Amino acid sequence: MQTIKNSPGTFSYVIGPYAEPIATVKPGETFIVETLDAFENKIDSPDADITKLITLPYVNPLTGPIYVEGAEKGDTLSLAINSIETTRDYGVSALIPEFGGLCGTVFTRTLNPPLPARVMLHPIKDGEITFSEDLDIPAYPYEPFYGTIGTAPEVEAISSLAPGFHGGNMDAADVCPGNTIQLPVNVPGALLFVGDGHAAQGDGEVCGVATEIPTRGSFTVDLIKGKAISTPRVISEEYIMSIGSARPMEDAARIAFFDLVVWLEADYGIERLTAYQLCSQVARVRLANMVDILYSVVAKFPKRYLPGTASA
Amino acid sequence: MQTIKNSPGTFSYVIGPYAEPIATVKPGETFIVETLDAFENKIDSPDADITKLITLPYVNPLTGPIYVEGAEKGDTLSLAINSIETTRDYGVSALIPEFGGLCGTVFTRTLNPPLPARVMLHPIKDGEITFSEDLDIPAYPYEPFYGTIGTAPEVEAISSLAPGFHGGNMDAADVCPGNTIQLPVNVPGALLFVGDGHAAQGDGEVCGVATEIPTRGSFTVDLIKGKAISTPRVISEEYIMSIGSARPMEDAARIAFFDLVVWLEADYGIERLTAYQLCSQVARVRLANMVDILYSVVAKFPKRYLPGTASA
Amino acid sequence: MQTIKNSPGTFSYVIGPYAEPIATVKPGETFIVETLDAFENKIDSPDADITKLITLPYVNPLTGPIYVEGAEKGDTLSLAINSIETTRDYGVSALIPEFGGLCGTVFTRTLNPPLPARVMLHPIKDGEITFSEDLDIPAYPYEPFYGTIGTAPEVEAISSLAPGFHGGNMDAADVCPGNTIQLPVNVPGALLFVGDGHAAQGDGEVCGVATEIPTRGSFTVDLIKGKAISTPRVISEEYIMSIGSARPMEDAARIAFFDLVVWLEADYGIERLTAYQLCSQVARVRLANMVDILYSVVAKFPKRYLPGTASA
Amino acid sequence: MQTIKNSPGTFSYVIGPYAEPIATVKPGETFIVETLDAFENKIDSPDADITKLITLPYVNPLTGPIYVEGAEKGDTLSLAINSIETTRDYGVSALIPEFGGLCGTVFTRTLNPPLPARVMLHPIKDGEITFSEDLDIPAYPYEPFYGTIGTAPEVEAISSLAPGFHGGNMDAADVCPGNTIQLPVNVPGALLFVGDGHAAQGDGEVCGVATEIPTRGSFTVDLIKGKAISTPRVISEEYIMSIGSARPMEDAARIAFFDLVVWLEADYGIERLTAYQLCSQVARVRLANMVDILYSVVAKFPKRYLPGTASA
Repeated sequence: MQTIKNSPGTFSYVIGPYAEPIATVKPGETFIVETLDAFENKIDSPDADITKLITLPYVNPLTGPIYVEGAEKGDTLSLAINSIETTRDYGVSALIPEFGGLCGTVFTRTLNPPLPARVMLHPIKDGEITFSEDLDIPAYPYEPFYGTIGTAPEVEAISSLAPGFHGGNMDAADVCPGNTIQLPVNVPGALLFVGDGHAAQGDGEVCGVATEIPTRGSFTVDLIKGKAISTPRVISEEYIMSIGSARPMEDAARIAFFDLVVWLEADYGIERLTAYQLCSQVARVRLANMVDILYSVVAKFPKRYLPGTASA
Repeated sequence: MQTIKNSPGTFSYVIGPYAEPIATVKPGETFIVETLDAFENKIDSPDADITKLITLPYVNPLTGPIYVEGAEKGDTLSLAINSIETTRDYGVSALIPEFGGLCGTVFTRTLNPPLPARVMLHPIKDGEITFSEDLDIPAYPYEPFYGTIGTAPEVEAISSLAPGFHGGNMDAADVCPGNTIQLPVNVPGALLFVGDGHAAQGDGEVCGVATEIPTRGSFTVDLIKGKAISTPRVISEEYIMSIGSARPMEDAARIAFFDLVVWLEADYGIERLTAYQLCSQVARVRLANMVDILYSVVAKFPKRYLPGTASA
Repeated sequence: MQTIKNSPGTFSYVIGPYAEPIATVKPGETFIVETLDAFENKIDSPDADITKLITLPYVNPLTGPIYVEGAEKGDTLSLAINSIETTRDYGVSALIPEFGGLCGTVFTRTLNPPLPARVMLHPIKDGEITFSEDLDIPAYPYEPFYGTIGTAPEVEAISSLAPGFHGGNMDAADVCPGNTIQLPVNVPGALLFVGDGHAAQGDGEVCGVATEIPTRGSFTVDLIKGKAISTPRVISEEYIMSIGSARPMEDAARIAFFDLVVWLEADYGIERLTAYQLCSQVARVRLANMVDILYSVVAKFPKRYLPGTASA
Repeated sequence: MQTIKNSPGTFSYVIGPYAEPIATVKPGETFIVETLDAFENKIDSPDADITKLITLPYVNPLTGPIYVEGAEKGDTLSLAINSIETTRDYGVSALIPEFGGLCGTVFTRTLNPPLPARVMLHPIKDGEITFSEDLDIPAYPYEPFYGTIGTAPEVEAISSLAPGFHGGNMDAADVCPGNTIQLPVNVPGALLFVGDGHAAQGDGEVCGVATEIPTRGSFTVDLIKGKAISTPRVISEEYIMSIGSARPMEDAARIAFFDLVVWLEADYGIERLTAYQLCSQVARVRLANMVDILYSVVAKFPKRYLPGTASA
């Protein structure tokens, strides 16, 4: 089984068509991807000065591009996530001035004094994560996923910090082991990029940083030939899901629900306005991020309400 | 036990200080409230012409105002929801032109042709709801809550269709039996309004209408004297929750998380920036509505991560 | 000519149908309105502690309600503004913590430390305003208008700090002498409220406060019977204008342009999609406010491009 | 004087660092740039089927990249626009389904039926533009500017349809002859791209398309060494201006005003909170676009209120 990783100094900070592939995979193949954490594994102490260690745009390094044999524009890439291991015994979270959900940012520009920088290391052991060894706060479970996963647009090279129709930095906890993510193919070989492993994350990732980890992940890749999707989709045992990324946040929700509704019509035969009315009764939503360049919202339809499921 | 309902023609279409109380309750008292559905119980057939039956601003009739003895500005009203029964054997949902999450509206004004009006009746029986007797879609559970619940602002009279700092039309499924909602007191007697029963609802209430029902609900009221809250809070067995309502949606999320963070600091001793960083690891979010005059977002902190809980 | 003013203690802090009219005017009548400034004329020194002088919701006192004889729901109120005099020889501006366009607010909630409070008095003399007697900044012209003007909704009482379909706190500098504003009539007598005089204002009113003055203004009132408008309109010698108020700001712009386009179709015979395409070539926009409860945008169509104007 | 244009087939559809420069200019040099219109000069009839002629992402072709000798990261590029001639005797405007300010789009996703496609040709002659030869609408003046002008980001390649901190598709009518635009330098040579000539445009460009023209424009380039700017700035005889591009629109306004305020502090010695309060009295705003991938807002400070100007 091949293990894919970038050499030091060759990580990608954009998702685009301009870098040479570092590996090739075939439909049906299972492979391993190794990723650095979003801070390039540079933080090993709570005393680290994060404002010096990270220098835009060299943040959130991605492993890739990975070339998928046979992928052509108009296909859909299907990636089953088999497992995600952390390759370090702690995660890192941080407060980064002018970044986050509850502070002025480079977009929501304010004249208020900035919040301070802060770094925390969160020990990971036996499937549990300790928030702080100094505080009496119970451990939370190791529930890993990839914060960033995407395929190259046709001509754009999009910051690894941004989500979008190509996937990218969605910070959606549904991109986790056991689930399958579908991504659009816009260029030959699809050009897949993966990174930003999270050991756990709160919905919305409100301070802008999750429990960041370097990872070793196992994927099985497949292609859906000749079927294009307009925004990322995820399938789990329980849900079919569409992810929208936009600002303002309601537009992210609109993109996600629009795609879910047309999906229910196209693949499950529920006329679209009926699907719209049905979603209003039974859909679920995850707020994936409220901090990135675009916000991401996951609209989820429970599989148990798909037509004919009752008799299954 | 007193049962509180409005006489026909006296329902409230605003939440404000200008109407005479219809009943008085005392702290500690358990009482029953009867409510009409959001369409004033006028829809009894899928052939109903909803565009004629509802005439703004006479939509979403509320039961109230209910005067709470001893409530003064600066207190917090605490309402335990004991139960919510539907008083009809079906719920109603609908598509209403120029209203909903995936269409042009009076705010997001577009020149596109409108979507059609539609009405569906959803039979409710044995704790299950049938979406359609004509479609092979499995039944969904009866999980009732109040879409609208709020207390009078000091001088404003706010449409029963709008949520806000006063509560109102939040459409948050967490306002359900077993949970306790806290609302601000701005005027003597608090002046509580309740309505908009939902037998079930998808997150976001994407088409703008849930499974609407008339109800009989049981509440137990209490006062937290001398403690003011700035936005509604809900407490369940599993979570403490703050609700933000605003447009754009990210501001609703900001209000909710800001309140959750200051709550964790004030009542649980977690310094606020630490609470902010902790929420980024373990918080949960419900998108309550993406269709009303303001959007509502519920930020949830799992009680199991409160300090000292591990030893409990 | 009657002069209309409220007695001390009777000013309105909401625009709604619940207060008794303080005066009655007839269509065709010219009358005088006297208003306090937005801070109730309480600030007479740069050392004033604005955080103590103003207590929500008792800010932005309005003169009214003024009953217009013969006005009925479905009519349009037409108000020609003849003149606006300041009744004080200085204007007041201020920085108010948690209010303004470049700081965290009660809606755009942030954890950043707040900005400081500040008060400035701006001397007004001979049609010019001195920003500061200590700074070498040239005087700016006295260009007065009413920041707040509106008519009662049918059942809501809307904060005097909020703009909306009813008019209200739009902070649109086009509501000035020489221009005519049209407002919807929702209740018998229309119930007009006026206040928030500004001696001058920058577009967007970015810090949240203009050069605030008490005023004596002259209006001539008229009714357009049986013609309803959905959002305020203003007519000047140069432009026809529609005002939209909403959040996010793009929705304010959509409301304004939508109304302008349907107006061009209904009254000037330009088919609506043609009007839409024409506005994209020649329309002008004023950002009225980026600080209030809703943002306000004025979409302007130059009268010189109205059909047939060339031959006039 | 050199004339810079791309060979057919080599136009850029992104602004980024990945294409080879097509020309080199030196600080102080005056040069000519030739551009195609946003539709690649493909539309020559009102019967053109715009939905077939344009294929994303191959829209809005840009001339460039142009390498500026001596430009290094951290400098500012200064471009005086001397003149813009149309190289065709008509402009083109259009309605494009799912694009524009008053319709559902790929971001503001709705289920409503789309608006129709439409194309209009607008004859240009003697400095005047005829909207339609069939309608009695007076001609509007030829007031040309570049809708798209920007410099390469460090690693991103941004769609020519998007504005941002790098400039790009701002659709700001202030980028016109007589004015100077300043753009950030992020890579060696700056890598300038220019296109999207407009013969005229309404504020907001509400239908998404202005009077589109191919152009021949004259620029004089200069460098401000060692001074970085964070967002584009424009200087005219009357104003200093900062341009913000973001969604929602209020964030575009915040970026613009924040930059204007820190500019007033840094270069004109007005303490920043004083500048903030002063802008609230005298600033002007142009809504540049309400239709592109990000909205653009221009905040303008009148030079006549700069300190010391009175004595000038």
